Parts: sequence; structure tokens; C-alpha cells
Amino acid sequence: MKKLLYPETIVWSELAKRPVKDLQELEPTIRSIFKLVQEQGDEALYQLAEKYDGKRPDALLATPEELAAAENEVSAELKAAILQAYSNIQLFHLQQAEQMPVVETMPGVNCWRKSVAIEKVGLYIPGGTAPLFSTLLMLGIPAKIAGCKQIVLCTPPSKEGTIHPAIRYTAALLGIETIVKAGGAQAVAAMAFGTESVPAVSKIFGPGNQYVTMAKQMVTQLGVAIDMPAGPSEVLVMADETADPAFVAADLLSQAEHGPDSQVVLLSTSETIVDQVIAEIEKQLQELPREAVAAQALDNSMAIVLEDAQQMLDYSNLYAPEHLILAIKDLQTIANGVVNAGSVFLGNYTPEAAGDYASGTNHTLPTNGYARAYSGVSLDSFVKKITFQHITTEGLQNIGRTIEVMAEAEGLQAHKNAVSIRLKKL
Amino acid sequence: MKKLLYPETIVWSELAKRPVKDLQELEPTIRSIFKLVQEQGDEALYQLAEKYDGKRPDALLATPEELAAAENEVSAELKAAILQAYSNIQLFHLQQAEQMPVVETMPGVNCWRKSVAIEKVGLYIPGGTAPLFSTLLMLGIPAKIAGCKQIVLCTPPSKEGTIHPAIRYTAALLGIETIVKAGGAQAVAAMAFGTESVPAVSKIFGPGNQYVTMAKQMVTQLGVAIDMPAGPSEVLVMADETADPAFVAADLLSQAEHGPDSQVVLLSTSETIVDQVIAEIEKQLQELPREAVAAQALDNSMAIVLEDAQQMLDYSNLYAPEHLILAIKDLQTIANGVVNAGSVFLGNYTPEAAGDYASGTNHTLPTNGYARAYSGVSLDSFVKKITFQHITTEGLQNIGRTIEVMAEAEGLQAHKNAVSIRLKKL
Repeated sequence: MKKLLYPETIVWSELAKRPVKDLQELEPTIRSIFKLVQEQGDEALYQLAEKYDGKRPDALLATPEELAAAENEVSAELKAAILQAYSNIQLFHLQQAEQMPVVETMPGVNCWRKSVAIEKVGLYIPGGTAPLFSTLLMLGIPAKIAGCKQIVLCTPPSKEGTIHPAIRYTAALLGIETIVKAGGAQAVAAMAFGTESVPAVSKIFGPGNQYVTMAKQMVTQLGVAIDMPAGPSEVLVMADETADPAFVAADLLSQAEHGPDSQVVLLSTSETIVDQVIAEIEKQLQELPREAVAAQALDNSMAIVLEDAQQMLDYSNLYAPEHLILAIKDLQTIANGVVNAGSVFLGNYTPEAAGDYASGTNHTLPTNGYARAYSGVSLDSFVKKITFQHITTEGLQNIGRTIEVMAEAEGLQAHKNAVSIRLKKL
Repeated sequence: MKKLLYPETIVWSELAKRPVKDLQELEPTIRSIFKLVQEQGDEALYQLAEKYDGKRPDALLATPEELAAAENEVSAELKAAILQAYSNIQLFHLQQAEQMPVVETMPGVNCWRKSVAIEKVGLYIPGGTAPLFSTLLMLGIPAKIAGCKQIVLCTPPSKEGTIHPAIRYTAALLGIETIVKAGGAQAVAAMAFGTESVPAVSKIFGPGNQYVTMAKQMVTQLGVAIDMPAGPSEVLVMADETADPAFVAADLLSQAEHGPDSQVVLLSTSETIVDQVIAEIEKQLQELPREAVAAQALDNSMAIVLEDAQQMLDYSNLYAPEHLILAIKDLQTIANGVVNAGSVFLGNYTPEAAGDYASGTNHTLPTNGYARAYSGVSLDSFVKKITFQHITTEGLQNIGRTIEVMAEAEGLQAHKNAVSIRLKKL
């Protein structure tokens, strides 16, 4: 971890830059996968599972028996934990439902809007060593609350052609019926274009490797929506002398273990704290199974000593972290000043891991500075907000002239006429 | 207008398809414009204004004097209309502010979210024959309500190097200070990358020609957000025997006059109504200044006679129109069944033009079937919803084990440790 003391504000922008990763070179491979899936449908998914995941699955879709079997393959303790997380996430996302009243903007002119579920959504859950059933909760619960009619789950099969029990258990809990053993760009293609077994969806959610990330970007050009652009996960911790160095180190490491490209930033007003955190990191790092991964991420990471809390806030807002942990004295003032961040964790006993798994907030968040313009996944991500209006004859008499004058000024006579022809009848 | 009688449902998908327009061929030109703007900044904007708009402007930014002058260049009647529309749009968008409570998902685990304005946004307003000051209202008002700190307005200058008075008047009303005389892909580039005079923004809004549309798509790959993907404007009208054929014709024409590629669809349960509407269109069309444009759009348009209201609803939901007008008897039932649409207009005295200008709803809406997954512009479009959480020591004791078990099951030991190390201290 690089230590920087009081860098001048003029270099902050440079410091806050993420490494640029150009995924363009993947485009030809992904295009050929798209073509294969469009032309051969299910058969392409079988072939590509054999090629990339190690085995041609017996069937593309998980059977009800496979789902039901998970009940006995997951430990009672894990099931209880998943149920608790489910409950908390559901509670928080239920509150995101909009209750907008009808607004009578002028007498007789009534406008309102209504959240309507996106009918068909696709969830991508990576496989591999870490079975991200937590991400399935984060995407599946708001999809269910929204009322999405068709939820397609794609996840790559293991070398044995199976899906991890915890993912099957969670999918069953959510009542997801269409579970496709497909990963990578081919899974994105299947959800975007549809195959015999996989219904095409309108929006695709979820994390993945570079191929998945690039494939998702590519389908947006074809009219399929995605949750948000992706990038390596990241955390920024603000720590003053009230922070506990061991806690801060643990939080930084929990981010660093995600991958060698994870971004980890420590801001502090105290060089002592920084030194203590760095010492703690070295101690805790040795005990981690993913030590090598975390060490690589830490090599690219920075601890920055700044003048005061305001400077930490300014730097954080410039950086726009995905996760922001406030291990500082004046929590509320700084929290109120946060302008750019995905999710904020206040105080010494609020580790990022809580939001990653179980507190209730969503963990699918904007990285890579996207927090400047994007929100994390929420109930909003699974609905469209459709506006409605009803105008009475009295209302049209009130608003008609305004419309006519504006339409005429924009040179759109037919727009004006749509009002005039009605006013004449009154 | 093509008339179709009772098409079988099997062909509906094909009927509902929009013509595909591939903008890829514009990419090299736009890339070279991007490069020029990145390398030469303001000077590139001067050169490109001269090349594409006809005159090198005296200054890139509109002066306070130019803004103030608009007050006397716009008629009192138009000013009053703009003020009325402003008031209605503001009233409706103010109600979109979220009031989400703090949710205590478990004792001591408190989660909430807060809407925070995107700091820097860019609004693109096309110039040309129709000065779209109405679009400036639709984008500027929610940006103001959200509290965006920096609002950049780009609009192409006229051949005389000026900006239309109604646009200047509206910009002044909104208190927008940075008004750039730049159009096309170069305006998008300036807002994405920044120049000496134009601040870089995080999100770009607004309609435009194919170059603007494609340039907006391209900057999304560079981390700049946009309002939504664009396509030709469209309306679908459902009309039964209670509809007024003259009104329906006027509504269809007001869509058709937008451009030769506008999509206009009429659904009816009555062939008589369809014939009457077509006759009315022919009559009204002749009186329109934009007759040629509208006639071209109508050539590609369809009137479809269907069995009943439910069939009309099903077809409409499949088509996912930007604008949906219900000129039918059973308004509320059908409105409740709308799943895919940008904005819905109920009843014979609610012309689309009302929502285009002044009723209060936003007119920046998803076209091209994007209404299946996208919402129109609203206050939401100008904010990020940041989540926050605070966990007490009691809260961590309640939720800690759940996190530990889930983290361990996902193979993320450092995540678990971030909790364990804290629990040990308690």
C-alpha cells in the first residue's frame, strides 16, 4: 500500500483515476459467440458449456428435482443465514415502492405515474470458486417485489455440469423457475436474443468476468437494457484517530480479496492511524486463504494523509467510491456531505460486509467513478415509471391556449391543431 | 396509412417491429470529431460550428446580454405560455422527490437512502427550424429541482451565429448560465471531455440528429451516462366507436409531422372508425405546413382493426409505444392493464400535445420499444440514490453471525473476518 502525505489538490484528479481497461479486443470473440447463439440456439449453449465450463450438461435448464434437492445439500446454518438476509433485503427494498399521488397541475389537468414491472428480466450469476448466492438475493428480491413476470437466471455449470447448491437453494427460495446452465458471453447472448429454452429478456443484471461485462455493453447497442456499466470493486475508508486500525485493515482486506484489480483507498487525517492500519493489514493478510489476490490488490492501493475531515470528504466526492466507510468522529456531518458514492457505511461497527450480505441495502453498486451519475440496483431498476394523464373538457379549456402558442412557436402546426380541433367542439 | 383487418396474433411481433437503422457507419466521422475536440478544445468547436452551422461564432458561450435580450424578443403571449408550462411541469416533477424512511431491518441495523443530485449535467437542445424550448423545460426543470450544481446547455447556433430567442428566454428562466453555441457530435464531445470553456459533465440528456444519437451512445462506453437510447418518435392510438375520428386524425398527424421516420399506429375495434380517421387525415393533412413530412411518415404507418379492447391492449403492450392515447370507452380498465408505454393519454380531450408541452409530465420518453425496460426522463434521471447504513454494537451482534456464515460459504474469508474481528471486541 502506497502512502502519500498531504498531496496537493492539483494532483487529486490524477490520483483518483482508475486504471483504464480496454475490453474492445474481446469484441470479435464475443461477436462470434453472439452469432453462434443466434444461429444455433440451445445447441450453441451446449457446445459452449462443453468448451468453456468443461462438460456438456445433460440438460440446459435445471430441473425441479435439482432445485428441490438443494434443500438437503445446504447446511441448516447457511439456510438460516440466507433466510435472515432475505428478510432484511426484502424489508429495505419494499420501502422503495413509490407512492406518488395524482397531481392536478391545473384544474381539470390530472397527471400521475405508476411503477410497472419490467416483464422479462435476466439475472447473471457467476460460477467458479465463489458461488455468489448473495448476488442472486440482491437481484432476485427486488425483481420479485417489482412483480417481474419472467425471471431468467443464467449461471455457468461446474465441471460436473451442476449448479452450486447454495445458488439452487436461493433460486428455489425466490421461486425462479428458469435456471439456465450457461455462463459467459453466451449466457448474455441467450438472454438478449432468446433460444428454444431461454426466453429473450428486456434487461440483464449481474456481475461477471470481462466477457460478460463486454457482452452486456454490446447488447445495449441492440436495445437490451443492463443494470449498469461494470468495473472492479472498490472501497474508500475515511479514518481519523477514533477509528480502530484493526477494523479498518479488515475492511480494506475484505475489498482487496475480491480480485487483483480491486481498488482500495484509505484516507486519514492521522499518519499514525495509517501506519497502524498498514501494520494490521500485514498481520491479517497472512491468515487469508486469498492472500495472494489481496496482496496484489494492495500493491495498487493508496493510503493518503490529508489535512482534515473536509479534505477527506472532498477527495472522496472526487473519487466517487463504490463503497464508502466512515470511521470518523463526526459521522453525520460528513455523511450529509457525501455527493458521489454507491453506498455509505457509518461508524466503527458497520463493516462493508454487512451491506454485501445481509443488512438490507443492495450490493450491486456503481464502481469506477460511475457513482457520479449512476445509482446502485434497487426496486427502481426492475420497474418502468409510466406517466399518465387525463384532461377534462374544462382542463383543456384551461391549458389549451398555452399548448397552441408553444406548438406554433416551435413550428409544429399539427400539434397545435390537435388542441384547436378539440377546443372548437366545446 | 396501411389498413390491416384482424391480423392473426402470430404475425403481431413482426408487425410491431420498427425499421432498424444502423448508425455504425457514422462512427468513424464521430470518432474524428471526438479526437478534434479532445485535442483542440474550444478551437475545434469554433471550426466545427463554421463547418456545420454556417458561421464561426464570435464567442462560444452566450453572454448575459444575449440572455437578457431575449426578454424583449419573445412575445408576451409565448412568455406567458412558457411560464404556465413551467409551473405545471415543476408541480408534477416536485412530487417525484423520494421520501424514503430509515428502515431498521433488524434491531440496531438502520438502512436508508437519499437522493443526491448529479453534480454536472449536460443538456442538448437541437436547433434548426424547430427551436425546441419545450425540451429545454423538460430537462432543465427536473435538473433544477434535483439541485444539479452545473448545468451545461449546448445548442447549435444559427447561420448568423445566434441562438433562438425562445431558447435563450427559457434558459434564462431556468437560470442556466453555461450556454454553448455548439451542436452535433462536437457538442456531445465537449460535454463528455470538457474544453477550456465547456465543463465536462457526468450525464448528457436530450434529443438530436443521428450524429448526436450515435455520439451519445459512444460516450456511454467512456463512462458518461445518457438519458436513454433514442429512436424516432411514435404514437399508438386505441380508438373504439366512442372516439372522435377528427381528434384521432389530429393526434396521429401531430406525431407524423415530427419526421418522415415517425411511427404512427392506430388500433381500433371498428373498421368504420378507421375509415373515418383515414378520411379525416387526408382532409387535415392538406392544411399542414409540414404536409410532406407527415405524408411520408403516414406511408409507413398502420391502422389495425382488432377483435376487442383486450386485443388492442395486448398489441399495445407488445409494441411498447412511446405515447399511448386511449380514445375508448373503458378508460380505467385498459389504463390499468398498460404494461409497456412511455406516457399514456386518457380520453378524448387529452391530446398527446398536452404532454408534449404543458400538462406537467415529461416528454422525453423511451421510443423504439425501449419502453419495455426504460422510463421517461423524470426527477430520478437527475439524481443518484445513495444508500446509507449505520449498525450499532447491538445490531452487529444481531446480524454478525448471518454475515459470517454467508461470507464463509462464498469463500470470502476476509469478509467474514471484518465481522469477526469486531464481534471479538464486544
